[in-house]
Amino acid sequence: MAGEKTIDLNCDFGEGYGIYSFGQDDELLQVVTSVNIACGFHAGDPHTMRAAVEKSLAAGAAIGAHPGLPDRLGFGRRELAVTPQEVYELALYQIGALRAFVLAAGGSLSHVKPHGALYHMADNDAEIAEAIVRAAHAVDPRLHIYGGAGGILLEAAQRNGLRAVSEVFADRAYAANGRLTPRSEPGATIESPELAARQAVIMAAEGKALTPAGEAIPVKAETICLHGDGPYAARHARHIRAALMEAGIVLRAPAPLI
Amino acid sequence: MAGEKTIDLNCDFGEGYGIYSFGQDDELLQVVTSVNIACGFHAGDPHTMRAAVEKSLAAGAAIGAHPGLPDRLGFGRRELAVTPQEVYELALYQIGALRAFVLAAGGSLSHVKPHGALYHMADNDAEIAEAIVRAAHAVDPRLHIYGGAGGILLEAAQRNGLRAVSEVFADRAYAANGRLTPRSEPGATIESPELAARQAVIMAAEGKALTPAGEAIPVKAETICLHGDGPYAARHARHIRAALMEAGIVLRAPAPLI
Amino acid sequence: MAGEKTIDLNCDFGEGYGIYSFGQDDELLQVVTSVNIACGFHAGDPHTMRAAVEKSLAAGAAIGAHPGLPDRLGFGRRELAVTPQEVYELALYQIGALRAFVLAAGGSLSHVKPHGALYHMADNDAEIAEAIVRAAHAVDPRLHIYGGAGGILLEAAQRNGLRAVSEVFADRAYAANGRLTPRSEPGATIESPELAARQAVIMAAEGKALTPAGEAIPVKAETICLHGDGPYAARHARHIRAALMEAGIVLRAPAPLI
Amino acid sequence: MAGEKTIDLNCDFGEGYGIYSFGQDDELLQVVTSVNIACGFHAGDPHTMRAAVEKSLAAGAAIGAHPGLPDRLGFGRRELAVTPQEVYELALYQIGALRAFVLAAGGSLSHVKPHGALYHMADNDAEIAEAIVRAAHAVDPRLHIYGGAGGILLEAAQRNGLRAVSEVFADRAYAANGRLTPRSEPGATIESPELAARQAVIMAAEGKALTPAGEAIPVKAETICLHGDGPYAARHARHIRAALMEAGIVLRAPAPLI
Repeated sequence: MAGEKTIDLNCDFGEGYGIYSFGQDDELLQVVTSVNIACGFHAGDPHTMRAAVEKSLAAGAAIGAHPGLPDRLGFGRRELAVTPQEVYELALYQIGALRAFVLAAGGSLSHVKPHGALYHMADNDAEIAEAIVRAAHAVDPRLHIYGGAGGILLEAAQRNGLRAVSEVFADRAYAANGRLTPRSEPGATIESPELAARQAVIMAAEGKALTPAGEAIPVKAETICLHGDGPYAARHARHIRAALMEAGIVLRAPAPLI
Repeated sequence: MAGEKTIDLNCDFGEGYGIYSFGQDDELLQVVTSVNIACGFHAGDPHTMRAAVEKSLAAGAAIGAHPGLPDRLGFGRRELAVTPQEVYELALYQIGALRAFVLAAGGSLSHVKPHGALYHMADNDAEIAEAIVRAAHAVDPRLHIYGGAGGILLEAAQRNGLRAVSEVFADRAYAANGRLTPRSEPGATIESPELAARQAVIMAAEGKALTPAGEAIPVKAETICLHGDGPYAARHARHIRAALMEAGIVLRAPAPLI
Repeated sequence: MAGEKTIDLNCDFGEGYGIYSFGQDDELLQVVTSVNIACGFHAGDPHTMRAAVEKSLAAGAAIGAHPGLPDRLGFGRRELAVTPQEVYELALYQIGALRAFVLAAGGSLSHVKPHGALYHMADNDAEIAEAIVRAAHAVDPRLHIYGGAGGILLEAAQRNGLRAVSEVFADRAYAANGRLTPRSEPGATIESPELAARQAVIMAAEGKALTPAGEAIPVKAETICLHGDGPYAARHARHIRAALMEAGIVLRAPAPLI
Repeated sequence: MAGEKTIDLNCDFGEGYGIYSFGQDDELLQVVTSVNIACGFHAGDPHTMRAAVEKSLAAGAAIGAHPGLPDRLGFGRRELAVTPQEVYELALYQIGALRAFVLAAGGSLSHVKPHGALYHMADNDAEIAEAIVRAAHAVDPRLHIYGGAGGILLEAAQRNGLRAVSEVFADRAYAANGRLTPRSEPGATIESPELAARQAVIMAAEGKALTPAGEAIPVKAETICLHGDGPYAARHARHIRAALMEAGIVLRAPAPLI
């Protein structure tokens, strides 16, 4: 419909391991339109992956692979000195493994979003970014790549002909250059759920984000990342969803490529 | 060609991990017509898998996934009390991961052969066998299943409509019921390379194997497993290959299903 | 004091891994007099071990090593075909690692209790039991061994001159031979917290346990195992503790050997 | 004896894992006077550790713990963003585990030398160095610390009252400041075994090393690190040993502290 404003809501999913669970998976699944499922390196295992895939399909969420560094102890959050070739290989392995579960369950894999330290490394190193994109391309050139708005990972996706999906964070302030304000700077995080929800709306409706000084700057916003951990994660996520719907934004995962 | 006798020679492949290598991969690859590549649980990692896949394709070998138990320390040789559901999930994960490397390299995955303790468990437990076969079927119903001649795994393959490829061991004696003589019994293993090569020929040419008493009994032989470790592995493998060729047997992997 | 009745209450502790937590550690620690700390194989990691040791010392609990099978995915609950030599080695490794944390924190290691499948294997295989006891002995011959009342592990402890501490379960019925009623039999588990607390009292006060038929049979009870997982774990544990105290039982870990 | 010149020769040891072996352990053991045994994180497992400890004791070598980063896939050679607290904990765990094997075999642990990336991180970050030294101190304040000559790790050892053992490399050139010439610079590595052996002699006899320009600069040399991998490792090691003996240098591990 002409003028229809849409946005995707994504969250990390299936981040347990063996007997361990993590995050508020089941509640978040009621809120999001796409999920990033851990693939067994930083979190996840064959059983959690199968369960996460089946729940996501049942809920109608678009499914993405969420490959991480081989550091389960550190939950993939610690940088590791991997080469681009190693990144290509570990991404290909994880995307391939997850895709098998998705196909076995009758679904299709829609996107790839690197996890944790790998996400940040991909936005700071063009070769790492290229490696992830090439792995996704090798599995299926129709896969979308989720990456930070205006970042190096999305540049690599476009360069390789993959659909780049621009990710934003409702609870983070943005710098004048359209990138995230580093956490070390004052005002970098938005604590108030109301302010975060309000930013989500202007991101989706106007393509704008707020600087720490409160200035609105243009940011391409195609998917908003919702957090699954922390005591109020599900509540904040529901708040953002409600605000978007009230503003008439249509919540929908990016259309699959055919 | 009418009357043409063919057989496949397979070996385990890509069984290193990180800096570690294992077996005589490069020499064996000159001998076999199909390989079973470790998928990262009992052995292998994303880098060894990629290298093994690329070498195998270059050598023209048919590529199989070789899923194992999650026991790298024990090289997948120790039985672990896994449920059929856990087997389905760990097999699906591993087959999916390896297949991604095969497709990325421009090849196609031809078969699945469980490794070590999982191979034996699948021939002693119909539910474990079924779980492996269903995982293979979920990835691609055209995949072949390699399993012990006359065994429970191959029954499961047939029951599920997958092509069952009957595997024999040239250096092992067979019992009157067509199954392997247990290693605990005298005469279970054939030490002499000449005798092993001779048995390989009658397996391929006549569909027969020898009991410890030297009696020839019928055994369906579609692929012979060649060992990659041990000081004389490559030499013995070449010996068997030469004997088969001299006997006019055509060495060829099972034809892919289309 | 003459006639004083004492018993130890133990629970598993420090069973998290990386970002994951498991069980109701902090609440249980208020209830027990000794803890069994996971050592990094089935659960635990260097950080959780340090934190668990420091908390336990602060709470005055006696600290035991809780070595498990190398199966984090299965939380050490799945039997693995390990040899006695492998058990000796994996137990020695884990006990040694945990002891370093205990000594670094200014405490002393008091006991060893194998975890999960290893606990059961040790009570079904005298060689496995011997291997665990020898590992404990190699680290410190004053270590106590916690094992099932009347079981094979405690026999091995006594044979090797280590103090055997007889463990019972308040929420399980016992067979006439003084061993646990298998879970597969009716009445094997005691669901009611009141009945479990009542059994705890007669265990401690009279050295008796109940069969599924309600008959009291003699059982040596030196430590009661309290569960840390499940929704009511902490509440049930407090219930048992309260009942014991009301009955005048002194709660105390076994005295250290000097 | 007055004027007696001594030096220690050390090598990494027990770097296998499960079925995998690595390096030329048995040959090197004939050459060195001390070994650094992998502790199960970057390499090694309970079985390899026991075997390595027993062989080392039999050969009379002083035994050190060789803790590494938790990155078996990368053999501990890839930097990982660990905090000093994490380093303290992972070092304490590994040193404690190895020490249990040494004591069980009737020996005593003599030193600690961090492995791979952790060795380099410890010489570039005073907090990482401090963490390793504190872990060693917590296990036994008499432990020696092996670290790069003139480096940050040895400073931390001295600051904490541990014996600092200055390590040099016979096959590496040194900069004018007494530190290793970075590998990226021309002349950083000494390819010729003869030149390496000659440098070993002047290191031991005169406390001097050579710059890429051939200038002799003072370097404190208490132990020379011999490499265990590479096709000529054992031969080069024997060459260095022979040259030192011919020059009248006494080969001996640093005296234990009592």
